[in-house]
Amino acid sequence: MTLYDCLESGNGHKVRLFLSLLNRDFDLVLVDIHKGETHTPEFLAINPNGKIPALKLGDGRTLSESNAILFYLAEGTDYFPSDPFKRAQVMSWMFWEQYQHEPTLAVARFWCHHMEMTPERKALLAEKRAKGNDALALMEKNFIHADWCVGDDPTIADISLYSYTSVCEEGGFDLKAYPAVRRWLDRVAALPGFIPMEPWPMEPGTG
Amino acid sequence: MTLYDCLESGNGHKVRLFLSLLNRDFDLVLVDIHKGETHTPEFLAINPNGKIPALKLGDGRTLSESNAILFYLAEGTDYFPSDPFKRAQVMSWMFWEQYQHEPTLAVARFWCHHMEMTPERKALLAEKRAKGNDALALMEKNFIHADWCVGDDPTIADISLYSYTSVCEEGGFDLKAYPAVRRWLDRVAALPGFIPMEPWPMEPGTG
Repeated sequence: MTLYDCLESGNGHKVRLFLSLLNRDFDLVLVDIHKGETHTPEFLAINPNGKIPALKLGDGRTLSESNAILFYLAEGTDYFPSDPFKRAQVMSWMFWEQYQHEPTLAVARFWCHHMEMTPERKALLAEKRAKGNDALALMEKNFIHADWCVGDDPTIADISLYSYTSVCEEGGFDLKAYPAVRRWLDRVAALPGFIPMEPWPMEPGTG
Repeated sequence: MTLYDCLESGNGHKVRLFLSLLNRDFDLVLVDIHKGETHTPEFLAINPNGKIPALKLGDGRTLSESNAILFYLAEGTDYFPSDPFKRAQVMSWMFWEQYQHEPTLAVARFWCHHMEMTPERKALLAEKRAKGNDALALMEKNFIHADWCVGDDPTIADISLYSYTSVCEEGGFDLKAYPAVRRWLDRVAALPGFIPMEPWPMEPGTG
């Protein structure tokens, strides 16, 4: 297996974290998203959507979308339940992650590091922060009474939500307001094989 | 089963369309998203995220996120393959739908009908349209050489992508540029049990 990835991406980290938890071997190919390396003809043959992470299997078939890759790797492991309703609950968290969590927490972090802070973007950033706090509040509500997203054990829903939550303060969020989320982050970080997000290589505003 | 839904929502339509294709009985409860009915204590007990569609099973358990509901209903039917790689490809399209297709095509349609067209929103609408056209172009690329999203038969990926694609012209997109997408829309509409999106109840700009 070859993983095409970029170390600052939480979507990429999800997959590397899960491969590490599963103790699976893979080759890592780093792709520089800021230099257009996801839009070369070679990369578009791997993912026509021009995004990392992408996974190439031993037989040459390729798969994109971080959560679909987690789904593929999880089947048959302890990280994906066998009960049909619990499976659907895992997917519910993961679709929510791509629709309401990543587009707010991850995008705020990206803008703070990579984008010129124009007045328009500053106005939108306030909206991203408000919606990102709604997302964190929904997680807090869950983790007040549950250790994991679904059932009594960690699943790929927890892996999917971990990466960008763990670095959301780089986007201006304050996890002090979410003590149950912080305890859940600690539980994920204590899993055997855990690897953290890489620290951001640049200071805010210099990217 | 009880489906909590709103007829103008494509996320809701996906689920009603799939239940109709499967010929499954269900009770429909219409919720007015514009009157705050998704944020009452009663509705938040069904979906703490305050969104339709939500499915309540006979035993009272509830499930949210349109694509997770499709996933739940599809298991064991012809609309979800048994091959692990194909299953992951189905999920890849569905995560892409929630990340790049719905937030552009559906949001442009919503803004054109429901929101005052401020200068700020007008500027963002141009961006939504550009990214929405990127999404349609990616689908066109697939459907030029394939009848369905994955493999030789319709799957829940096709159901998930159908609803908002079928009404994207209400958001200012022009499907003339995407003939293979139009042929795919016709194929979905020819499936036994098909039901279309409801026509929008209001003229653009009057909502």
